[in-house]
Amino acid sequence: MATQLQRASNATTTPSFDASFRQSLADLLAWRRDVRRFLADPVDPAVIDELLDLACLAPSVGNSQPWRFVSVESPERRTEIRANFEDCNAKALGGYAGEKAAIYAGLKLSGLAEAPVQLAVFADEETEAGAGLGRQTMPETLRYSAALAVHTLWLAARAQGLGVGWVSILDPARVSGTLETPAGWSLVAYLCLGYPVEEHVDPELQRFGWQARDAACRRVLVR
Amino acid sequence: MATQLQRASNATTTPSFDASFRQSLADLLAWRRDVRRFLADPVDPAVIDELLDLACLAPSVGNSQPWRFVSVESPERRTEIRANFEDCNAKALGGYAGEKAAIYAGLKLSGLAEAPVQLAVFADEETEAGAGLGRQTMPETLRYSAALAVHTLWLAARAQGLGVGWVSILDPARVSGTLETPAGWSLVAYLCLGYPVEEHVDPELQRFGWQARDAACRRVLVR
Repeated sequence: MATQLQRASNATTTPSFDASFRQSLADLLAWRRDVRRFLADPVDPAVIDELLDLACLAPSVGNSQPWRFVSVESPERRTEIRANFEDCNAKALGGYAGEKAAIYAGLKLSGLAEAPVQLAVFADEETEAGAGLGRQTMPETLRYSAALAVHTLWLAARAQGLGVGWVSILDPARVSGTLETPAGWSLVAYLCLGYPVEEHVDPELQRFGWQARDAACRRVLVR
Repeated sequence: MATQLQRASNATTTPSFDASFRQSLADLLAWRRDVRRFLADPVDPAVIDELLDLACLAPSVGNSQPWRFVSVESPERRTEIRANFEDCNAKALGGYAGEKAAIYAGLKLSGLAEAPVQLAVFADEETEAGAGLGRQTMPETLRYSAALAVHTLWLAARAQGLGVGWVSILDPARVSGTLETPAGWSLVAYLCLGYPVEEHVDPELQRFGWQARDAACRRVLVR
């Protein structure tokens, strides 16, 4: 059976997107969420495979496709990643005082203990693909490209009913050591994936009183 | 009339996404494209407004929402941005030799001369929103968040039949000077928007022999 990607890539006529699709896309964007509460239910590896195929359709600077995926499966390495998170999280908590510290201490900031699938996403800073095009003055666009692959995977996962959580409370060099990744690969994201325990349209950090939606970021400067 | 965003945010039941939506999403991802060839047709400002609303639904570290949008409208400033691009592009061309230089010289790498709408997207590195959560060890996630807002806008634009091109061949400090943006804002992307002259499922850099799709980036390391 053809995958969604095969059907999309083999299409010879330009697709058009109607109002109903656009409303569903808005729903997807609104209900995406960073998930930290996962069911133990396993995820079909074929679904993860299809998500990775779609992630590779992300935009990339100079078509460099610098994203690199590591599936973290060994219990020992998962334990090391969790210890890395716990060390960094304890240190971060130490930077807050009073009510903010109390709220921070009560937040669940990762699903590392439960998520059935864990993917580390790196940018290959030494890739020859793209031959440097577009990244002479803004070399950080290589890492942005890997971040866009993460976002693509995230949206495609949510459309399958799967939750994704992006864990950034990690020492990235220590993650690279744990995962024995090639030199030149920089950690961009550590992702937890699985079926979510609950679904919300509002971010967990808003619900728990850390940070609300901020209308100020929507203002547009005109120049 | 309620916008897509209002309808999505006011929904009280969790949406579910069916196979037909997932196929359309795969089509959207496959046909997105970085567009550099724009029609002169104007874009309804209400459409841009709706795209910006949707962009603000992007994930952000600690819910910091650090994206900042600048609509570049003055002909003088557009001319300065174009000169910035031309200087950086000439310098980049000087870094290639032989056949690669010949291909590079023939590529159209921006739609700055034609795109009816131009948006510069910055990350506010000094925002207090999010109170630093999630970005002690990986502060670059603030800029990644702004990159994800760009990607969100890009997909939503394509679903409206609009093309987006991300121009990174720019001196970012010079862009900040031209646009007189607040201290602490870092340029993440300069976007050209408009209706595309043509539609393709393959990237222009592939079609013109610069860089093909690379299956190697799809391999997954297992750890």
